[in-house]
Amino acid sequence: MIIDCHGHYTTAPASHAQFRERQLAWFANPALPAPTPAVIGDDEIRETIEMNQLALQRKRGSDLTLFSPRASAMGHHEGDETVSLSWTRACNDLIGRVVELYPDNFAGVCQLPQSPGAPLAASITELERCVRGLGFVGCNLNPDPSGGHWTAPPLTDRHWYPLYEKMVELDVPAMVHVSASCNPNFHATGAHYINADTTAFMQFVQGDLFRDFPTLRFVIPHGGGAVPYHWGRYRGLADMLKRPPLAEHVMRNVFFDTCVYHQPGIDLLVRVIDLGNILFGSEMIGAVRGVDPETGHYFDDTRRYIDALALDERDKRRIFESNARRVYPRLDARLKGRRP
Amino acid sequence: MIIDCHGHYTTAPASHAQFRERQLAWFANPALPAPTPAVIGDDEIRETIEMNQLALQRKRGSDLTLFSPRASAMGHHEGDETVSLSWTRACNDLIGRVVELYPDNFAGVCQLPQSPGAPLAASITELERCVRGLGFVGCNLNPDPSGGHWTAPPLTDRHWYPLYEKMVELDVPAMVHVSASCNPNFHATGAHYINADTTAFMQFVQGDLFRDFPTLRFVIPHGGGAVPYHWGRYRGLADMLKRPPLAEHVMRNVFFDTCVYHQPGIDLLVRVIDLGNILFGSEMIGAVRGVDPETGHYFDDTRRYIDALALDERDKRRIFESNARRVYPRLDARLKGRRP
Repeated sequence: MIIDCHGHYTTAPASHAQFRERQLAWFANPALPAPTPAVIGDDEIRETIEMNQLALQRKRGSDLTLFSPRASAMGHHEGDETVSLSWTRACNDLIGRVVELYPDNFAGVCQLPQSPGAPLAASITELERCVRGLGFVGCNLNPDPSGGHWTAPPLTDRHWYPLYEKMVELDVPAMVHVSASCNPNFHATGAHYINADTTAFMQFVQGDLFRDFPTLRFVIPHGGGAVPYHWGRYRGLADMLKRPPLAEHVMRNVFFDTCVYHQPGIDLLVRVIDLGNILFGSEMIGAVRGVDPETGHYFDDTRRYIDALALDERDKRRIFESNARRVYPRLDARLKGRRP
Repeated sequence: MIIDCHGHYTTAPASHAQFRERQLAWFANPALPAPTPAVIGDDEIRETIEMNQLALQRKRGSDLTLFSPRASAMGHHEGDETVSLSWTRACNDLIGRVVELYPDNFAGVCQLPQSPGAPLAASITELERCVRGLGFVGCNLNPDPSGGHWTAPPLTDRHWYPLYEKMVELDVPAMVHVSASCNPNFHATGAHYINADTTAFMQFVQGDLFRDFPTLRFVIPHGGGAVPYHWGRYRGLADMLKRPPLAEHVMRNVFFDTCVYHQPGIDLLVRVIDLGNILFGSEMIGAVRGVDPETGHYFDDTRRYIDALALDERDKRRIFESNARRVYPRLDARLKGRRP
């Protein structure tokens, strides 16, 4: 089977986004009526999924998507901790309903109610609710809840440890994924996303996080940011900083997806990164939605790039399926339960 | 000939760095005596150059390095505008003396006395001093003088236009190069440098800078940050943002160097980026100084990666020489004057 580890509900019903607008308006002016999450019928969800993600799964030939709320709309920098919590719960509940309607096609990944400067208690509670209550298999962790001002401590800081303890206890990984940028220097999907990936990787190189949490796992999306292209730089920096070789250190706990939207990038990724660290992902329908005039195919139809690789079927199966089942053991358990 | 477009005086005499230390101490405590730049003899300069950059030029087989002050020590976020100016002048004067001692081996590239929130008047004056007075051929422009807080406007903002007007008038390009990071999220050479490259490129994609300045030129170092690896993403984003195709827009004015420290990265760079946009660079002796255990050669001996490419001599000559002479016309004029 083909597991797409990176999908967001970018096509959620408009009333969900309208709730967010009302929520932020209410935050700016508490005299307004306090909004409640949109009441969304199953048919509305079916329509937005069947015409979009499900149609593309069928068309492009993937089986199951790890599905989380729209990343750019997490907006941890907007409102406050309370606003972030109610928005996050509404977003995650919607994902839960998609998974309930299409249990064969989607598994849930939650966003966390982060907020700049806020403690992680609410994120821990929400993670537990989503995993134990809604059957989710992972979470998205934003290393920069300030939205482009980078005011939080690095991911290796003890600030994050209570969340990591819960992730280890629940045996769920986090995808490191920022949200929108409110810093005009950083275009969200063209700079902020990729920079965050690169930044997180280098933090892991510098730190000793995986000594403290040997089973903690992160997926760095967008093909690992700039890292595979600069793999020699990172190998060299690890050596200069007297860190262990990457293969014996960061790469035991860190994985890259395949959201790299052209063949030469994917070719490089599989050339330099151990196949055991690569998870198939597309982030469809996401940052780049057009057709590549050079190929006539959608940029984010990443399955084509993997299909075109000179790898045997066993290796492709690692990228398409078995790595994801190893990194997301709760997904593996679900799949085993369903298809014994 | 082989022109290395990216070298910093990372081996400057210790007394130069001591001046900086005294300068920052004096800034913190104005009761201390005001320091003056170190008095450095020609022999000291000869020693630091001949044992290092010049020795490696000979050993690795390059002819001329575009040489600028140590990037990580520019430290625009430290001190104030006045401190930045006197430090910058001392740094540039030292480069001027290296060039004077070794005019066949080095051409000068200046740092600018930027300072967070400060106007660009001092940078314009210093650029003119270095180009007209010291014969320099380009400058390094820091898109984030705050050192990792990204408080300046994007490079496409009119804030920068007076400097661009001077660059156009003098016909000199800028390398986009940040300095040290004072944000603990960003390792300088492992995240901040690469992020800045990616960020600047995306700013150019979003903006219309080169409509206003058709002859303005930038070199984005470190192989263009994450850009070539994500070339499909950038082509797709340009299309989604209704920008012209990259080849007809940004890539008329923007060039990437070859500071990518492994063969697969360089292979990708020349596969996706037009050869007319690639300038040979090594940044030796810089961020990554060790030997790659996989090859037995220095990571930053980038000539080896170019030599290994399946390109004919004419194409290699573009990367090694002719592109640099086109992007740096004052270098070309100097070389023509010297070797008629």
